[in-house]
Amino acid sequence: MRAPAVVLLSGGLDSATALAVAQALGLDPHAMSFRYGQRHAAEIDAAIRVARAAGIEDHRIVDIDLRAFGGSALTGDLPVPEHRTPTEMSSAIPVTYVPARNTIFLSFALAWAEVLGAADIVIGVNAVDYSGYPDCRREFIAAFQRMANLATKAAVEGRKLTIHTPLIWLSKADIIRRGLALGVDYGLTRSCYQLDPEGRSCGRCDSCLIRLKGFAEAGLPDPAPYAGGS
Amino acid sequence: MRAPAVVLLSGGLDSATALAVAQALGLDPHAMSFRYGQRHAAEIDAAIRVARAAGIEDHRIVDIDLRAFGGSALTGDLPVPEHRTPTEMSSAIPVTYVPARNTIFLSFALAWAEVLGAADIVIGVNAVDYSGYPDCRREFIAAFQRMANLATKAAVEGRKLTIHTPLIWLSKADIIRRGLALGVDYGLTRSCYQLDPEGRSCGRCDSCLIRLKGFAEAGLPDPAPYAGGS
Repeated sequence: MRAPAVVLLSGGLDSATALAVAQALGLDPHAMSFRYGQRHAAEIDAAIRVARAAGIEDHRIVDIDLRAFGGSALTGDLPVPEHRTPTEMSSAIPVTYVPARNTIFLSFALAWAEVLGAADIVIGVNAVDYSGYPDCRREFIAAFQRMANLATKAAVEGRKLTIHTPLIWLSKADIIRRGLALGVDYGLTRSCYQLDPEGRSCGRCDSCLIRLKGFAEAGLPDPAPYAGGS
Repeated sequence: MRAPAVVLLSGGLDSATALAVAQALGLDPHAMSFRYGQRHAAEIDAAIRVARAAGIEDHRIVDIDLRAFGGSALTGDLPVPEHRTPTEMSSAIPVTYVPARNTIFLSFALAWAEVLGAADIVIGVNAVDYSGYPDCRREFIAAFQRMANLATKAAVEGRKLTIHTPLIWLSKADIIRRGLALGVDYGLTRSCYQLDPEGRSCGRCDSCLIRLKGFAEAGLPDPAPYAGGS
């Protein structure tokens, strides 16, 4: 019997790949997505498509209202920057940073893991191609894992939790190659910060630029739809 | 100008006291409460009363759906135990334990603290009179603080966050004495796990028994209403 694991699934390129890696490792993924004031339900649609294509039977979508606090372009308070160069992207924490987002997501994953009796959480954070978010760094994940192992009944009773970050040191091109080898259909995924209502990516925000660069470096076309035509 | 701080406020005896201590320390409390599948809105009513009595101008109530995962008497899945002895209470983690509850609450507090520019979070956890919850222990709080200081833009930029636990080593009787000295009206607070729709406590669950024992040890009557008459 495969061991249950909670996999955080945004519907983007990274989390779809992390899900495929979790399955390749022999885990039984239970997928968790969040509605948190994204501009479009199209992001959740992508997560649902990805989970379905991967044959995930248990996919929970949790509503959380990060807009109550404000403070990020991704929750609708500030404009999303476009056409930035890699140097501009890496020079400071971007306005698309959502306060404590991964901390909140991992906290819900921890609660669900405890209820499922799961000893594993999988998150597709990546520290290479986009290091501007403090909560995508390995030292943050390690500190969360230490905290989690003091937080729960399961941990107190000796069942230790591991947070897996299978993509953390991979380049975007390597993530794409890994996912394709595992059969991921990237046409189902969306990475854009400002998807249009039809679920097409803008091709101009940081996330689109990094994704397109990754496909270019991998020598492949991005199968996802872009608003200007891909 | 007083420094802003996020204070977690359930509306119970402990958090009302923690709020008063935060004010006595010269902080400017912003209060945060959670609706998470409690049996009655009466708990939130208590939090609102306590915040109002303390003159808190900014009180946010966050809806989170812990019922999606199940696994606790406090989220409605299991019966609340009654009339347990102190030995029974301390012998194991109780069914009223909500998976990762304080981790989730502190994660939301962390997000709000970052948006407010607050360097302080206050939580009324207590390790003395009720040590059955793993996420009420000092080592858990310390690990959360370490993680939080790697999680946020504020921390990366050098503004360190402190999680205050002013009640952690106090007995329930000492908490009550401290709060009364600071002017807390405990008649506004509710600690019961199964409040009735009128907001009266049961007097039989672990939380009521501990509270009533605290008032008895402090040599005072509990001014809150009980279903059987107090």
